Order: sequence, then C-alpha cells, then structure tokens
Amino acid sequence: MSGIVVQNIERADPAVIDGLAKAGVATVHEAQGRKGLLAPYMRPIYPGARIAGSAVTISAPPGDNWMVHVAIEQLKEGDILLLAPTSPCTDGYFGDLLATSAQARGCRGLIIDAGVRDVRDLKQMNFPVWSKAVHAQGTIKGTLGSVNIPVVCANALVNPGDVIIADDDGVCIVPRADAAAVLEKAQAREAAEEAKRIRLAAGELGLDIYNMRPRLQEMGLKYV
Amino acid sequence: MSGIVVQNIERADPAVIDGLAKAGVATVHEAQGRKGLLAPYMRPIYPGARIAGSAVTISAPPGDNWMVHVAIEQLKEGDILLLAPTSPCTDGYFGDLLATSAQARGCRGLIIDAGVRDVRDLKQMNFPVWSKAVHAQGTIKGTLGSVNIPVVCANALVNPGDVIIADDDGVCIVPRADAAAVLEKAQAREAAEEAKRIRLAAGELGLDIYNMRPRLQEMGLKYV
Amino acid sequence: MSGIVVQNIERADPAVIDGLAKAGVATVHEAQGRKGLLAPYMRPIYPGARIAGSAVTISAPPGDNWMVHVAIEQLKEGDILLLAPTSPCTDGYFGDLLATSAQARGCRGLIIDAGVRDVRDLKQMNFPVWSKAVHAQGTIKGTLGSVNIPVVCANALVNPGDVIIADDDGVCIVPRADAAAVLEKAQAREAAEEAKRIRLAAGELGLDIYNMRPRLQEMGLKYV
Amino acid sequence: MSGIVVQNIERADPAVIDGLAKAGVATVHEAQGRKGLLAPYMRPIYPGARIAGSAVTISAPPGDNWMVHVAIEQLKEGDILLLAPTSPCTDGYFGDLLATSAQARGCRGLIIDAGVRDVRDLKQMNFPVWSKAVHAQGTIKGTLGSVNIPVVCANALVNPGDVIIADDDGVCIVPRADAAAVLEKAQAREAAEEAKRIRLAAGELGLDIYNMRPRLQEMGLKYV
Amino acid sequence: MSGIVVQNIERADPAVIDGLAKAGVATVHEAQGRKGLLAPYMRPIYPGARIAGSAVTISAPPGDNWMVHVAIEQLKEGDILLLAPTSPCTDGYFGDLLATSAQARGCRGLIIDAGVRDVRDLKQMNFPVWSKAVHAQGTIKGTLGSVNIPVVCANALVNPGDVIIADDDGVCIVPRADAAAVLEKAQAREAAEEAKRIRLAAGELGLDIYNMRPRLQEMGLKYV
Amino acid sequence: MSGIVVQNIERADPAVIDGLAKAGVATVHEAQGRKGLLAPYMRPIYPGARIAGSAVTISAPPGDNWMVHVAIEQLKEGDILLLAPTSPCTDGYFGDLLATSAQARGCRGLIIDAGVRDVRDLKQMNFPVWSKAVHAQGTIKGTLGSVNIPVVCANALVNPGDVIIADDDGVCIVPRADAAAVLEKAQAREAAEEAKRIRLAAGELGLDIYNMRPRLQEMGLKYV
Repeated sequence: MSGIVVQNIERADPAVIDGLAKAGVATVHEAQGRKGLLAPYMRPIYPGARIAGSAVTISAPPGDNWMVHVAIEQLKEGDILLLAPTSPCTDGYFGDLLATSAQARGCRGLIIDAGVRDVRDLKQMNFPVWSKAVHAQGTIKGTLGSVNIPVVCANALVNPGDVIIADDDGVCIVPRADAAAVLEKAQAREAAEEAKRIRLAAGELGLDIYNMRPRLQEMGLKYV
Repeated sequence: MSGIVVQNIERADPAVIDGLAKAGVATVHEAQGRKGLLAPYMRPIYPGARIAGSAVTISAPPGDNWMVHVAIEQLKEGDILLLAPTSPCTDGYFGDLLATSAQARGCRGLIIDAGVRDVRDLKQMNFPVWSKAVHAQGTIKGTLGSVNIPVVCANALVNPGDVIIADDDGVCIVPRADAAAVLEKAQAREAAEEAKRIRLAAGELGLDIYNMRPRLQEMGLKYV
Repeated sequence: MSGIVVQNIERADPAVIDGLAKAGVATVHEAQGRKGLLAPYMRPIYPGARIAGSAVTISAPPGDNWMVHVAIEQLKEGDILLLAPTSPCTDGYFGDLLATSAQARGCRGLIIDAGVRDVRDLKQMNFPVWSKAVHAQGTIKGTLGSVNIPVVCANALVNPGDVIIADDDGVCIVPRADAAAVLEKAQAREAAEEAKRIRLAAGELGLDIYNMRPRLQEMGLKYV
Repeated sequence: MSGIVVQNIERADPAVIDGLAKAGVATVHEAQGRKGLLAPYMRPIYPGARIAGSAVTISAPPGDNWMVHVAIEQLKEGDILLLAPTSPCTDGYFGDLLATSAQARGCRGLIIDAGVRDVRDLKQMNFPVWSKAVHAQGTIKGTLGSVNIPVVCANALVNPGDVIIADDDGVCIVPRADAAAVLEKAQAREAAEEAKRIRLAAGELGLDIYNMRPRLQEMGLKYV
Repeated sequence: MSGIVVQNIERADPAVIDGLAKAGVATVHEAQGRKGLLAPYMRPIYPGARIAGSAVTISAPPGDNWMVHVAIEQLKEGDILLLAPTSPCTDGYFGDLLATSAQARGCRGLIIDAGVRDVRDLKQMNFPVWSKAVHAQGTIKGTLGSVNIPVVCANALVNPGDVIIADDDGVCIVPRADAAAVLEKAQAREAAEEAKRIRLAAGELGLDIYNMRPRLQEMGLKYV
Repeated sequence: MSGIVVQNIERADPAVIDGLAKAGVATVHEAQGRKGLLAPYMRPIYPGARIAGSAVTISAPPGDNWMVHVAIEQLKEGDILLLAPTSPCTDGYFGDLLATSAQARGCRGLIIDAGVRDVRDLKQMNFPVWSKAVHAQGTIKGTLGSVNIPVVCANALVNPGDVIIADDDGVCIVPRADAAAVLEKAQAREAAEEAKRIRLAAGELGLDIYNMRPRLQEMGLKYV
C-alpha cells in the first residue's frame, strides 16, 4: 500500500470551503451530526487561527518526513497538508523550511498526528499547525510512504480532498461530497443561534427558551 | 442522589471573595495550609485571567450538559460554575451560548473537569474557563444530574458556596466558612513576601534571609 | 550521593553560548547530530522566550525545594537553573520569590522536570521557565539533595556547565566541551538553510533542490 | 489540618461488609446509584482478589510514608488501609514489611493513589493492593500527615469507616451509613440478574427480555 | 448517520479466519504490509487468549450501551463484537450478562475502545476482551448509535465483516477481501521463520543469516 | 556519535550479579541510596521473573531494530540487552526470533524503552522483558545506531557493563564499580529486615520498633 502518490484528487467548491472556515469547527461538527472530529490532543501551536481547505493526505513512517516533500508538489492553492504516521510518533517532521515551501504552493496549514518544530517561525510566517506535540527531534528520509490515500489521523478517517476545518477548538473533517450540504446546515444553525444569543444575553434562560421545564419535571428533577 | 437542585446556598462575603482573587491561587493555597488545589491538568483556556467567586456546583453524566441550563438559573452575581462529570469525559459541555447566558446572570467563569468549546469566542467575551480539555464534541440533554450538591472535581472536594480562586497557576477551593480567616493569612503572607522580595532583588540570599545555613550544615551538606 | 554542592564548575565561552541561543533549539539539535533534546512534555510557561546559558544543576527530592536556595548561591551571570527530582513529581518548586533571587544573581531562566507556580508574575518579570507542569502545590524544606552534580532531566543527561538552549521548540543540551564546534556547525547550517529558504519561497521544490526524484523512483514510488 | 489521628471511628456491620465483598464492585456500584468508584487507573497488583473492609484513611505528603506506621496502630480486624497523597506521586510508600505489620493487625489490603513495591512478596502473602503505580522508589519519614480524616482518593471522597469494596473491576466506596441498604439492593440485583443470565444463556435476547424493541423503533432505529 | 442497523454483512471464509488466528497478530500484521493494528493501549483483560472472527461493529454514544443489545441480535457463530464510542470514554459498557448473551450467539470476544467490567467473570467464562480500560462505571440506554457501519476504533478503520485477530500482542484488522491472500503470506512467513528459528537457536547470528554485514560496513558502522 | 559498536566492555563479578538478583529491585535501590530506578512505566510482560545481568546497551533510531542484531553478537553469558530509542517510540522492536537468538548467546532478558511483541512466545521461552509498551508494530532496518555506548533509558543513565536488576517492582541500575559494595549493603539490609519482619508479624508496631513516638509527639502529632 505504501509508495503511492495519487496526483489528481477532487476538491470541494472553494466558496463552500471558505464558508465552512467562517462557521468554525464547533458549528460544522454539530451541523454534520456530531462527527468528524479529530482527537482532542490535537492542539494549535498558536491561538487565533481559523482555516479550512482541501486535505492532501500523507501516510508516513515514524520519524521519516520524506513524503512531505513529495506531498508539497501535489498542493494546490487552498489545500491543507494532513500527516498520519504509521505508528505513534512525536518527532518534529515539519519546520520553517517545509512551511516556506508549502506556503509558496498555496498551502493554508498543516494537521499532523506527530510533532512539529520551529514554531516561533511558523507563527511569524502565519502558517498554522495543529499537532500532537511540539518537538525539535529531527527525522530522516529513508522509507517510502504514500500521498493522497485514505488515512486515519488522530482517530478520524480522512480521504484526500475532504474538507478540513481547524480553529482553536480543534480539527473537523467534512467529506467532500457532503461539504455543500453541511455548510447550509451550519449557516442555518448560526442564524438560529444568533437569535438565541440575543435572548440569552438579555437574561432569558435556556430552560424557558428551549421549553425544558416540563420534561425535567417529568423525569423527576426536584428543587429543594 | 441525582435529580436534585439545591436552590438556596450560602455564599461568602463578596469583599472576602474579591480579596482572595487579588491574592491569587498560589498564595491562598499556602495560606490555608497547602490544600484545596485541583489537579494540575486543569488549565485556563487563555492566559491572564484571575477570578474568585462562589461555587455553583454541577454533577453531570458523561456527555450530557442538560444540568448546565438548570444551574444557570441558580447563579447569582459573582458566582462561578463548577462541573464534575460522573465518569471521565472530555466532551465539550459548554460553549459561547451557555457563556452568554451565564454571563448575563453575573457568572464570572467556569471550572470543568471535562471539555469546553468555542474558546475563541469565550476569550473575546472575557469569560474565563479552566478545563481538562478543549474539544468541540457536542453533548446531549437526556439524563438528570444535580445542582449544588457536594462534588469531587479534579480530585478536590467542592461544596456549593465554597470560594473558588482561579488564575494561571490553576484552581484552588476555600471552604466558605474558612474564607475570611484564609484571606487574613493570605494578606499577611503577601506583606511578608513583599519585604523579602525587596531583599532578594537586592541580591541577598534566601540561605541568609531564612537562616538556613546552620540547619543545612547540621544535616551534612558538603561544599566541594 | 546527595548532600553535595560542587562550587566551581567550568562554563563555556559566553560568546559561544549567545551564538547558540541565536541559532535556537531545532538548529542546534541538528548541528550536534540530532541528540541532546529533553522530552517533549517540557514546555515553556509563556511563548516567545529564547535563551541559552550554563547549567547549574539541582537534584532534589520530590516536593522539596530546599536545594533551590542552595543552588542560587552558586549562580553566575548567564547561568540557567536545571532541576531534576529524584522521583516523578509535579509540585510547584519555584515561584516569583525564587525567580527574583535567581534573576538578581544573573540567572536567565529555569528548566524543571516538575511544576512551577506564579507563572503570571514570572512572565511579567521576563523570567522564562520550561516545565513539566504548572501547579501551585507548595513544597517543603526538609531533605538534602545536591547541586552541580550530573543529573538525568526529562530523559536527557545534563552535566553542570553544559550549555542549555531553550525556546518554543523545547530544550536542548550541548556538552560544554562541544559547544564551540556545535555553534560552528549550527551557523553553517543556518547559512545553508537561508539559501534554500529563498529558493523554496520562490516555488522551487525540495524534490528538485535536494535531487530526491531519482532515489524515490529507484525505491519504487509510483505516481498514479 | 495535618498532624491529626482520629482514634475511634465507627465501622459498618461485619456481616454487611462481607456481603458487599461477595456482591463485588460492579454490582455494588450499580446498587448504590452508580457512584462511589475510584478512577480507573487504580488497578490490582495481581488478579483475582476480592475484598471489602472498613476504611482507615491516610493523608500523606508526597514521598513520605511516616503516617502509614501511625495508621497501622489504628487498624482493627477487617479494616483496609487507604492512602491519598497530598499531591500527585508514584513513589513506593508500601512494601512487604508494612504489609506484614498490617496483616498482623487484621488488615485485608491497601488502596493507594500512589506507588507500591515488593509486589511479588505481597502476592505470596496474599495481601492485595490496588494502586496507581508499581514503583520501587523509596520514601522518607520527615513530615506529618493525618490518619482517619476525610480524604479525596483517586477522585472519590472517602470518610474513615466507609466500606471499601475492591476486586478486579476496581474500587468502590459505600458510605458507612448506607452499607446495609446498599447490600440489600445489591442482593436483589444479583437475584434478578441470575434469572436473566439463564435466559440469555439459552439464547434469548436482551432486546426481548427488556422489551427494548418498541422504544428503539419509536426513536427511529432503522434496520437495513 | 446514527440509528442504522445493517443486517446482512459479508464474512470471510471460516477456514481463513481460523488460519489467521493461528498465525497471530504480529505475523498477520507483517504479512499484510505492516498495517491494520489498533493503538497499543488496547490490552487483553487476561493473558493467553488468541482469537479471530468477523467484525460486528458498534458505534455508540459515550456512556450508552444500548446498541450492544441491538448488535448481539446480529451476531453469527464466529463473530467478534467491536465497539467504538463517538467520543473518548472509559465507562464499562459490557459485563458478564452481555457476555453470556453474546457467547450464546456464538460470539468469540469483544474489542472495545472504552471500558469493560466483571472481568473476573469474563475470564471464568473464557470470553476474552481487549479494551482501553477496566472500569465498573455503569452506562445508560438512552441514545441511538449504529450497528455494522464502518467505524474508526483505536485509530484503525474497521468495516463490518473485516477479520479481527487478537492476542497478547494486541489487535489487528484484515479487510475481508484481503483475508485469504494475507493468510497465504502469513503462512509463508511462518514457514520461513521456522527455519530461521532453528538456526538462531543453534547460535548462528542474524548478521550472517540475513547477510547484514556488508551493508552495515558500507553505511559506516565502526567496531571499536 | 551513532554508528559505533564497543566490543570489549567490562562486567561485574558474576557472583555479585547473582546476589543482586536475589536481593531484588526494591532492596538494591535502597542499598545504593535510593537511586538507579527506571521510570515506573517500565513493566514486565509477565509476572514472576527476577533477573540480574550486565548491560549490553543499544541506542536505536525510532522504529528501526537493526542494531539489535548487531548487539546480539556482543552478548556474553549472563548479559541483558537494554534498548533506548533516540526519540519516543512504542514500536515492537523485538520478538520471538530475536529472543531465540539472544537466548542462544546466553542473554537473560531485555529492557526496552519502547515496544515488544510475540509476548506469548517470550513467556513460553522464559525470556523476560520489561518494556514501555506491548505493540506488534514492525520496525525497519535502515539506519545505524550504536551498541555499548552510555544511554539514557526511561530517565536513567546506563553505562555498558552496569548491572541491571529487574523484577516485578521494575528495573534498577547499579554502576559496575559499585556492584560489590551495593550487594554487601543489600544483604545487610535483608538480614536486618528479616528480624523486623518477625517482630512485625508478631504484632509489634513499627512505631515502637523504630522508636518513632517521641519524634512524632515533638512534631505535634495529635491523637483525638
């Protein structure tokens, strides 16, 4: 299975992708039925970034970042690199030189179930990364992996071309084919939330807005 | 035991509470005899906040945030929500809508031995949270828990109305009845520290200020 | 073995130390053959600091910070304190008072395989710390340890006088005797990287710059 | 708060305690409304033991086992020692000598939110332990703690004299005053389970025995 | 996506499945190109079991085991239940009653990325389980999940009907369509290993058997 | 530094080594001043083994077990292999074939700060292993490491030829030059303990045997 580079992958509509970025991880996750999240140990290396893009996936051996170079050639404007090691690893596969190269090809960021380094430089470059670890540990270039095959990353399945949304809440994957429908639901959700936010800010209670009291009483909630 | 909401809890004197906030977690913890700290995995979602308030406690099932709505009705100006799940969980029980509602009721922040989401919004709202995880994972509203009962949260016992102090060093609990006495000790401690800080900053050594040399020699410390 | 304070340790050339700080952890680690890193759980308490200095080492019992006072007397301008507990511990051995004292003696920061507290104050003082935990838990002064003996800290061997480099990527140790040679290699590496950065930023690929294509083909990489 | 030894604690009826041991952790936990469990990292040092007894609690400093000696004097036939360190610790507070002493006083085992050692000897002595770690790391005898005060152990509140039940599933605490009532419920539960076990073993489905099908259909479960 | 039960799934040839069990996890994993392993935190509740079977998959909410009952109806002789929670959870979804029911339907064991309980009974029943935790914590039956849909379990993708192999080394998944080919390779590998085992047991070195010396010399290995 | 094999290492007296095995990890650790322990996550793959031997050390890249073959040639009767990866790794470097080869050369076991596999076979062969993980994940043979150089393994420094003691309590390292002296102290300690064990078993208290009561009273312990 390793040693394969898939060159032509399909991507979602750029406008849909940008809409999903605007909605953010929590809303998109709810909109698509509470699925698609990566494990919560995947954290941004600096706060405040919010991106979405098409997944260019990398399956890489532990401690070997050769396939990152291969993957960068496959990047198109608006893509996000996503790397899953074939066994658990915290080595620093990626630093400022690779980020320079990826950014020059239009890449919006990196999702990596392993380590990253040069994080101060990456922040200055405005190249966001969500990773399992920050670790300066260097890697080698000795063994093949694959690019743009389906991978499991931080306990989530990712197909090349899926939409990745990432912000301070973590990382969410939306299958390419579902992207437009999920965006629609996400926007509807945001609109509904806005109305509720105004009422809640005015002091109304969720107990009343969502009419929870009868059901709570029925289930036996006791006020003492 | 679950399915109970205690409505009238006693709270400490607001001036005492604010004094404890000013003293901060490390000082208060020392002042009350080195106890009351939550486990160190409880971290703030953004740096710089320092709050104190009266605990409104929530015992909630894993992945079920229904009781948060119930608890918000019980909030008074200056309270802090504290949620302990009945089994280990990292789901995102709390986000910007609940924070809007809590803040409208005078709530100063949230302590949660589980996950939180919408952390960018929470930061913009200036609503601080100390949590075990940041995770967008949504929750349901299907099972009762309780509000304002004693809970164990991150390995610390918390009674409703206890004073919670939280800052970049973590979270500390002061029993309501002890709050005034602890504040007094904390302020005495701060005053004493200030004098020492000046001497230390001038280059004097703790070895001399605290007269440690004789005891170190007696215990056999050897300089080579 | 405990109960010893070594007073006269050798240190590396200050100009070399400052050069290593400028190169940073990731580059220095590569330059000395990919070794010397502390475990990746060692994280800075605030982002952005980059320091280097000579190690004044502390071997301390769990939950006992007495030896920190002893170590501070041994500090010289440009040193860094490094504390390894004799068994795993997350207690807060170090806070703003000790930092005041250390800073007054010329200390540039602390590396501690345990906990630290008063992190807001430490940030305001510009006293950086890399630690395993932030925890307000106080310590005692009851048992001897040692100062300036070889220690294993976060899975790395550190001898007193070794050069410590620490930044947002973590912490790296360079043996004192190797410091000048490592700096030379680090500077050569930086120069070489700068040229590559320009080419990569212009859109050239690592595949071409490093002439990777023939070897990838030979190993059987397939483009589909 | 530390430095106190409570000498006279009340204990539950021995027959009730033994009945709870026979029911086991999972059943007792269910019978008392799904509460009282210690965190799942508390594991037995060897499989197969199942005990219950009255809690003699120890609050001990990290790495200091002095209070274990003090607690052993307070043991009565049928008691179980339970130790909670005042900050996280994995040191080996307890080994074969202490077990010999405790066993001679009628102690049935140890629950410790820290480390234990001499585990081969403990197994040969038939002295079961549930712990957070196995670690040979020795401790000191330098600082006071307390015996028979309320403690939080592995995220559960334990009062002296509470009934501890421990087996391969973990550790459960039953408040002394509730012990008889919980036993009654546990025995009723066991009887009910036995009937169901026979039907399930014969191939009947829980879907039918518990009449789950209508509710599943109502909630929308679809068979495809 | 949740609320679906797929009733008719294809399974691999029983003789192939049994052959894979005999080969064991490590050999099968190698034979299929070093993939398919679940994360190493998945451990057997007792040593010595070695099974293979067809996956009946369960996607379940955290702390809700309702779908296990639904899945048991779908079991056929030789199947293995595999449960993946929709968010991280250590609750005890499964105990002796469910095991009795599953075993009566021909089930060979359980793989669960969560907790299990009644482990002493399960061992006596000879019903093996590989889990993330042992925890008595009970679950509820309130929310739908799905049965026999693709799931990600402990960082591995599992489709219903895939072959699961589990032993003391962990858990490996072989896609149904690959099972026969993988078995062939596994058996070839075993035969080759047997010859090598005899030579190694006689004291021959792998350096010579695999002719490693020339390549080691070429890469610069130095004997000093 | 990598790519070196040191062929002639000094070893401790075999009689001393066997004496240390008999004393066991906890006693030896105490006898040498409470140092030398590996981190508590290093656990035996099966209970009951107790060995000692001379360390043949391996520094290996993550996921690359080539150097194990090289190290086996350096084994002498009574040695123990000890492997430290150059970055954190849980891959299964070692299985039954390598164990067959090592055992044929007189090796008594393996200490590995990474993963191991074929654990059922290893148990049947009576080849004990202490490891960080059990994981079937295969490794490659592509990069050089070193054999018989000083390594840091699980937070402990190990020099080739040091004595390793390992049992159910974990792993302890005794520097070769200290072995005879440590054995003497360990045996003295055992003799002293035996006398105390008899008194404790008869019901005498440690409080009296060690004359702790006056010091406890002096420190303020209060019986209530």
